[in-house]
Amino acid sequence: MGEFRILEIKQSVFADNDRRADEVRKELKEKKVFLLNLMSSPGSGKTTTLTRTIEHLQEELRIGVMEADIDSDVDAQTISAMGVKAIQLHTGGMCHLDADMTAQGLDGLETGDIDLAILENVGNLVCPAEFDTGAVKNAMILSVPEGDDKPLKYPLMFSICDVVLINKIDVLPYFDFDMEKCKKNILMRNPNAKIIPISARTGEGIEEWAKWLRDEVKEWQK
Amino acid sequence: MGEFRILEIKQSVFADNDRRADEVRKELKEKKVFLLNLMSSPGSGKTTTLTRTIEHLQEELRIGVMEADIDSDVDAQTISAMGVKAIQLHTGGMCHLDADMTAQGLDGLETGDIDLAILENVGNLVCPAEFDTGAVKNAMILSVPEGDDKPLKYPLMFSICDVVLINKIDVLPYFDFDMEKCKKNILMRNPNAKIIPISARTGEGIEEWAKWLRDEVKEWQK
Repeated sequence: MGEFRILEIKQSVFADNDRRADEVRKELKEKKVFLLNLMSSPGSGKTTTLTRTIEHLQEELRIGVMEADIDSDVDAQTISAMGVKAIQLHTGGMCHLDADMTAQGLDGLETGDIDLAILENVGNLVCPAEFDTGAVKNAMILSVPEGDDKPLKYPLMFSICDVVLINKIDVLPYFDFDMEKCKKNILMRNPNAKIIPISARTGEGIEEWAKWLRDEVKEWQK
Repeated sequence: MGEFRILEIKQSVFADNDRRADEVRKELKEKKVFLLNLMSSPGSGKTTTLTRTIEHLQEELRIGVMEADIDSDVDAQTISAMGVKAIQLHTGGMCHLDADMTAQGLDGLETGDIDLAILENVGNLVCPAEFDTGAVKNAMILSVPEGDDKPLKYPLMFSICDVVLINKIDVLPYFDFDMEKCKKNILMRNPNAKIIPISARTGEGIEEWAKWLRDEVKEWQK
């Protein structure tokens, strides 16, 4: 069992979130800590994807996870049980994390011995997209049951993400989901997005995702 | 084809949203218009459920639909094609609708000849739960692929909803979803919640949902 605790996040007092985010990133660079901001709708499989990712990377990278949730601590407990450092951030009803709230989480996580810090943001495709958390890269998960039209409806989220994981591809046969149409919709919002179809349940595609993340961490730590 | 247009919603200027919501409800009561606020995560099947609901009720009730979306007008076009009045509310990045924004939508819809107005709120389980829209009843859709634990993670949303539709029950065999556990989790948040399992795709359960809605409209119009 890894470390595990709950941190109550305070409302941010910084007016200029973008500047605070740049400060956070600068500090991460100095400490050689890579921060990934992972976003998605509720129920798209963030926590399951995270456990798969940890399985693939925990031998070579020291990982710490911040689970942002309005209430409950089930996710941090799940992650902690895998033997990595985990902290539950209670946002007190807030629908997103900004840079200073993320900095509070990083302090709580004590990142001195961490290579890769992952922020599991609040399950929401709207508000988290509007706030730079200070992360080095943004990733999001879109799951097959949500539909291939989501990039049309949540434009900002798709435009700010460096990677889009298309999760639950094991249930593709049971849904009207057009993978090519979905990719086209994503690339319309962000031509540079890396798109990786995965199934967190079966493990399909996780190797490619883990490789991308590993390479990014190594690049950041140079 | 029903009427269809796009309305750009202005930021609300009312400090006291609860009071504005009560005003909206009072006006609706006078006009004998029933307003349903329909909420859910992105991709849970709001629009498909809505088209099924309209099929069941449009012979007996005059229906108008407000589609709140950050961008795009695909939903209002879909609804409009069914021959009912539809209006697309562009929220300009806002993650929810409050009472005054809803009032702007009702004005745009011109509710003089409407029995049932339905607001399809922004796909989000966090922010919409915090703002009374002035609706007579709140309903939400939780879809099977999202998981039976969502009431634990989004407590406020489940506690304010009069009805929870559990959608996509046709794919139950392909997901680890415990219906009894889900019902228990919902009732823990709101012991008075009416829970109706449905499949908007196959039509299962829609009759029961339409009956509940029809009875509520009739009661409101007395």
